[in-house]
Amino acid sequence: MPDTAPVLRHIEETFAQSVARLQDLLRFPSVGVDPRHEADTKACARWLADRLAEIGMEASVRPTEGMPMVVAHDRSAPEGAPHLLYYGHYDVQPADPIELWETPPFEPTIVEGPRGPRVVARGAVDDKGQIMTFIEAMRAWKAVHGALPVRVTIFLEGEEEASSRSLEPFLLANRDELRADVCVISDTGMLDVDRPAITYMLRGLAYAEVTLHGPSHDLHSGMYGGAVVNPINALCRILAELHDDEGRVQIPGFYDDVREIAPEEAEAWRNIGFDEAAFLAGAGLRSSTGEAGRSVLERVWSRPTCDINGIWGGYTGEGSKTIIASKASAKLSCRLVPDQDPARIMAALKRFFAARTPAGCRLDFVDMGVGGAIRVPTDSPFLDAAKQAAHEVFGVAPVLIGCGGSIPVVAAVKRILGLDTLLVGFGLDDDRVHSPNEKFELVCYRRGIETHAAMLGRFADVRA
Amino acid sequence: MPDTAPVLRHIEETFAQSVARLQDLLRFPSVGVDPRHEADTKACARWLADRLAEIGMEASVRPTEGMPMVVAHDRSAPEGAPHLLYYGHYDVQPADPIELWETPPFEPTIVEGPRGPRVVARGAVDDKGQIMTFIEAMRAWKAVHGALPVRVTIFLEGEEEASSRSLEPFLLANRDELRADVCVISDTGMLDVDRPAITYMLRGLAYAEVTLHGPSHDLHSGMYGGAVVNPINALCRILAELHDDEGRVQIPGFYDDVREIAPEEAEAWRNIGFDEAAFLAGAGLRSSTGEAGRSVLERVWSRPTCDINGIWGGYTGEGSKTIIASKASAKLSCRLVPDQDPARIMAALKRFFAARTPAGCRLDFVDMGVGGAIRVPTDSPFLDAAKQAAHEVFGVAPVLIGCGGSIPVVAAVKRILGLDTLLVGFGLDDDRVHSPNEKFELVCYRRGIETHAAMLGRFADVRA
Repeated sequence: MPDTAPVLRHIEETFAQSVARLQDLLRFPSVGVDPRHEADTKACARWLADRLAEIGMEASVRPTEGMPMVVAHDRSAPEGAPHLLYYGHYDVQPADPIELWETPPFEPTIVEGPRGPRVVARGAVDDKGQIMTFIEAMRAWKAVHGALPVRVTIFLEGEEEASSRSLEPFLLANRDELRADVCVISDTGMLDVDRPAITYMLRGLAYAEVTLHGPSHDLHSGMYGGAVVNPINALCRILAELHDDEGRVQIPGFYDDVREIAPEEAEAWRNIGFDEAAFLAGAGLRSSTGEAGRSVLERVWSRPTCDINGIWGGYTGEGSKTIIASKASAKLSCRLVPDQDPARIMAALKRFFAARTPAGCRLDFVDMGVGGAIRVPTDSPFLDAAKQAAHEVFGVAPVLIGCGGSIPVVAAVKRILGLDTLLVGFGLDDDRVHSPNEKFELVCYRRGIETHAAMLGRFADVRA
Repeated sequence: MPDTAPVLRHIEETFAQSVARLQDLLRFPSVGVDPRHEADTKACARWLADRLAEIGMEASVRPTEGMPMVVAHDRSAPEGAPHLLYYGHYDVQPADPIELWETPPFEPTIVEGPRGPRVVARGAVDDKGQIMTFIEAMRAWKAVHGALPVRVTIFLEGEEEASSRSLEPFLLANRDELRADVCVISDTGMLDVDRPAITYMLRGLAYAEVTLHGPSHDLHSGMYGGAVVNPINALCRILAELHDDEGRVQIPGFYDDVREIAPEEAEAWRNIGFDEAAFLAGAGLRSSTGEAGRSVLERVWSRPTCDINGIWGGYTGEGSKTIIASKASAKLSCRLVPDQDPARIMAALKRFFAARTPAGCRLDFVDMGVGGAIRVPTDSPFLDAAKQAAHEVFGVAPVLIGCGGSIPVVAAVKRILGLDTLLVGFGLDDDRVHSPNEKFELVCYRRGIETHAAMLGRFADVRA
């Protein structure tokens, strides 16, 4: 095994510079979804490519129809070494509501918190701080050994917060260039600051928008009320049927391919020490709601859902207006679990609405996109290497966890490049991802860099 | 009987000026419910008082806590003549959705339609066009005879579309000044352009706004979905329970005081020649929806309802956003029929929501106002006089009809001033009241003025 110890020492000694570089990255308002920040987003891509070139990689900014990709290759490793593909994104969520930030979102500020200093800025953890964990680990390896122990390709996108529109075309067009042995992504979290985690399950998503059209125009509810279809009432009746009284989704066939988790998995989850009360308190709630007879972790990690994400129709201003609206709309999405076929669920959802559209109404159903759930094989030698590396850095073995969210790139990388993904991330539940005052604990940042450095060393010994 | 014939001739000769004055009135964006239009609404009141003073009335704009009342007295009639109280409202509904108007809502435009020219503007018929029918009739009487044949008091409010908050305090405070023999209101409709009608039943209203509060802030639907209450889903489940599969309202006690109409009434309604297909076509519909086993007229005139008037929550912009909203809201209202107690229905509605608010949610229930249903006596000499006047102008006897809408002032005038109301209106079902492109047929406007002129003449002979 290559010698990781001096690399870890170097990381400790130069950590102040690693923080400074992260702050530089965080100063770019790379809100890729906002046309006003197009130049900022492109400048951010350029900055990243320059940093990667600076440590001896062959780095380029590659145009797409939207925001560019940053691609870098490092071929300094010995012949025959495993080849790792690192993915991340340099675009960030909009900073709104801006007035709730305590420090300016694009002036990264070091603030003392209960776990020591943290950096507060939009993108601090999602995903700029996390991509810097592996870039800084590679920088340290290069500084100490002049080379990486494994062959590395990095690709960073600028449209993750905008549905990754250019991702699949780019993967398809650059399939050969991006092929590797396994993909590594740091965009997930830990159980807490001392308990590392590797995510092995991600839920998928099927997102739709529905509109029920009824009368040709808004009607006076006195003149017509009682004699004509009311699209809002009709839509609510359909939406109410999405769940039964036990919280089970009523879309026909919804659970057909859903498997129960294995007893040993259930056992492992019970022993994780998940703090249900703290999780709910983070949402301002005291009780959990959901499928009857399931724990919170089961509900979030291993069970599919159907949530209405938005609804609108009729008069929504101040005061009272006595109308029967001509139409009513909702956005809704199903979180999916492994083995559920997203396209089949989307089709079933559409049939669910079509079958319940009442006389006098016309249904508009828009498929807003699907992505399958992911289950990463837990018996891979790369996963073992990552576990050992995290154990080494944290002094405890990482736990294998699920995640209720979706990372669509994982499915795309599997489908297009044929690669499994290793999800090793360093965020915390309270990092305020997508919210004002997003932050990244510097202790998480440092341990992230250290874990990636140790992983690079251990990956070198993997013989696929 | 005073000589009405020259008055009718004068109305015909000067109709172009009557139209021009209506257009002037329609140019005021008197959206009383909208604070941004407070000055416009007050200017509209001033304009009306000036017009009434111009024809020799003692007119004043009277402040209230909200929008002002316009009050005018005419004492030009012979001693001992009956005293009529005319009510109307000069405020209008908001023009939203503004983008659906084919001409600007506050630039009254004369458009040629299948029944000749019509004026298109917000308030064209509700209620500015209708109040101008009696004001212009009085102007004509004054122009021809120098006096009215009956004693007249007019009061016009500016908050009818905002629950008439100042109306009752004003009636109470000015009880003596407003007392008369009977009240006349033009805010209802005809069967069609050639078939006049007098309305003898009006539904009441109970309007509420509900909000379900769940999580303390919008949550990521991946991180939390399936384990926490979703206020939109929860609200839809409650709203869906408002009706059973037969279209009956499920609020406990809702039908307790609802009486079936008399067999002779049902018979009269069947013989009105109501064109159900045309009524539905006016709403762009081919079939009626509602309480099973009831005709459209029964549903609209004699049965109570519960319609959702607006709903909102979560993400309603372009594209997809995967959130669980912290709250969801709806506006809803019940149309009520005679003998239903509005306060009791409002209380039952509140209990309905409270009983169904799930764990993890908090209910905000706002009573936005109630008004009882009305049944006008059909044996009064003033009603007979109005029938004869309409017969004279239209060449056919008016029919007695119900109306699904609510005119809360009718109940207040009865309770506070002790007056019955005569509801003689000139709107048509397809006038797009409360909708974009609201219009008033000029033929209806002219016949309305003529009918009021004839009514003034016939009222003079009524000896109460």
